[in-house]
Amino acid sequence: MKLNTESILLSHGSGGAESQNLIAELFYPFLESCVIGSGEDAGIAQIHSKDFAVSTDGYVISPIFFAGGDIGKLSICGSCNDVAMMGAKACYLTASFMLEEGFKINDLSRIVESFSKTLKESGAKLISADTKVLPKGALDKIFITTTAIGEFLYPHLHLSAFKIPKESAIIVSGNIGTHGAVIYSNREGINLNTTLESDCALLYPILEPLFASNLTLYALRDATRGGIASVLNEWAQASNIGITILDSSLPILPQVQGICELLGFEAYNLANEGMCVICIAKSDAQKALEILHKNGASNAAIIGYTTDRNPKRVVLETNFGAKRFLDYPSGELLPRIC
Amino acid sequence: MKLNTESILLSHGSGGAESQNLIAELFYPFLESCVIGSGEDAGIAQIHSKDFAVSTDGYVISPIFFAGGDIGKLSICGSCNDVAMMGAKACYLTASFMLEEGFKINDLSRIVESFSKTLKESGAKLISADTKVLPKGALDKIFITTTAIGEFLYPHLHLSAFKIPKESAIIVSGNIGTHGAVIYSNREGINLNTTLESDCALLYPILEPLFASNLTLYALRDATRGGIASVLNEWAQASNIGITILDSSLPILPQVQGICELLGFEAYNLANEGMCVICIAKSDAQKALEILHKNGASNAAIIGYTTDRNPKRVVLETNFGAKRFLDYPSGELLPRIC
Repeated sequence: MKLNTESILLSHGSGGAESQNLIAELFYPFLESCVIGSGEDAGIAQIHSKDFAVSTDGYVISPIFFAGGDIGKLSICGSCNDVAMMGAKACYLTASFMLEEGFKINDLSRIVESFSKTLKESGAKLISADTKVLPKGALDKIFITTTAIGEFLYPHLHLSAFKIPKESAIIVSGNIGTHGAVIYSNREGINLNTTLESDCALLYPILEPLFASNLTLYALRDATRGGIASVLNEWAQASNIGITILDSSLPILPQVQGICELLGFEAYNLANEGMCVICIAKSDAQKALEILHKNGASNAAIIGYTTDRNPKRVVLETNFGAKRFLDYPSGELLPRIC
Repeated sequence: MKLNTESILLSHGSGGAESQNLIAELFYPFLESCVIGSGEDAGIAQIHSKDFAVSTDGYVISPIFFAGGDIGKLSICGSCNDVAMMGAKACYLTASFMLEEGFKINDLSRIVESFSKTLKESGAKLISADTKVLPKGALDKIFITTTAIGEFLYPHLHLSAFKIPKESAIIVSGNIGTHGAVIYSNREGINLNTTLESDCALLYPILEPLFASNLTLYALRDATRGGIASVLNEWAQASNIGITILDSSLPILPQVQGICELLGFEAYNLANEGMCVICIAKSDAQKALEILHKNGASNAAIIGYTTDRNPKRVVLETNFGAKRFLDYPSGELLPRIC
């Protein structure tokens, strides 16, 4: 598949098939020889023979304030979670703020306060920051880019999307699709009259007890843009395995299910900001679930298994035994979801 | 000085007095306890007892293509230069691209090509990257944020803005104000009919011979937003010293001087993207100049000295012996200069 367009499309940023294509067709050909660690949530750097994890993300969410969070909290959780997916604890963070002329000081103040509160929770230190102000109209309100640097406190972990064996179990650490449903209903002006909040949260604290256990973890990935559908497809392709998911086992809040039915979405395609997919030895899955439930991840659930059938594909099994392929989400999905 | 405004102003991003004020009055009160290494170009991180330098910057320049460079080249040089100012060589780089829907694939391709070329020159590896696409109108074309991680190959260096002694010499590594003059004249539609180009370049290669020497270097800073006027004022305040600059010793290209006279600017307030200010022991200044001249910095010049008179202030001496304070640039200066 080539980039058969002259212009950037919204779908190039969706986290689905078109995003993969933009990276593969435009970025990689130039950058190939100077890229390391591609295909994981964070890269592994090495200085003086010491490994550490590094991950960067730009946050452009709209609206900037939403139920359960704001762009400041999101920009810390997102990058800290990315290094957590490699098993690393964020110890340093950088932040670049881009502000629109005329942006309200009060709003900036709320955002910096929440950024700071979440940073303190994470335990990471802000090591470098930058602020740019652009003329009115040159950007919409505020964008934040953060880079997290994480250290490996549990060196026995060797998490990778590329070495997942067949016959391992797939767990999600919480309800799926909540962040996406909150942002979408907010933008569509749907008044939910509920207490539904984005799941935006730091994942390291709920995962650390798993890292400290002697369970056999294969891979972790936070299911942001493109939802769990993207994560599962990436894993199936990277490790050349099949993945079978049981539809009835997916934990979805009733309000989220309602929004999905109203708007014609599937929760497995929607973004999450405080939920990850965990691949673990089948024999350790039940124990992992207990640890997760005990440590704040009360909705964690086993949702499926890896197999040697249908390599590189994800299969969704319904209650009635029907099966269909669960593909990468494609199309525009939801711009500015994170 | 408090933030006596309800909204963000362009001057908050100028790199001058108002930028300092925004940081001090809004960001620091929230972040104080979780910030390290403030006041330098890069922070010093430590993992497993090993130090490394980290610096982040957002690049929002307009126009995105200019004589001597583009936003891709700039985004590598800028962050690599920031860690070079601590004496560190960039070994890893992260990049976050924000793209406007409808941005031309050809333009993106030119930018990624130049980004990649400069990255290869730097010797750093891209360890993490992110691409976001926003709906048309949500940002102007393309913004790039990079974070450079640098290693200290010359551990005898202890560069800091806070420990500059009196009676040291101030050197600039090249002509001043060139980048700012190119961008400004481009935006004003001034056709220069000259070959004037931005100085946008990697600084580590011209500085490494100084690092490898046994000369006594005190501080380095690249003179981006706010020009050398900002750097000198930051140093004077951070180290509680006076700085005297000889107007006639400032290396300025005649075309840049012409643009300054036409537009009413001073070259010492204009941004540079491949030039730094060096503070060095007086007795080593001449030797340093020879090393710089031999290694590609042919316009490097000694421009002044630190003193114990007028602590925290910078004094500009003209040819005729007149003296005046050279203050932080203030006001709007030039938005989107880098």
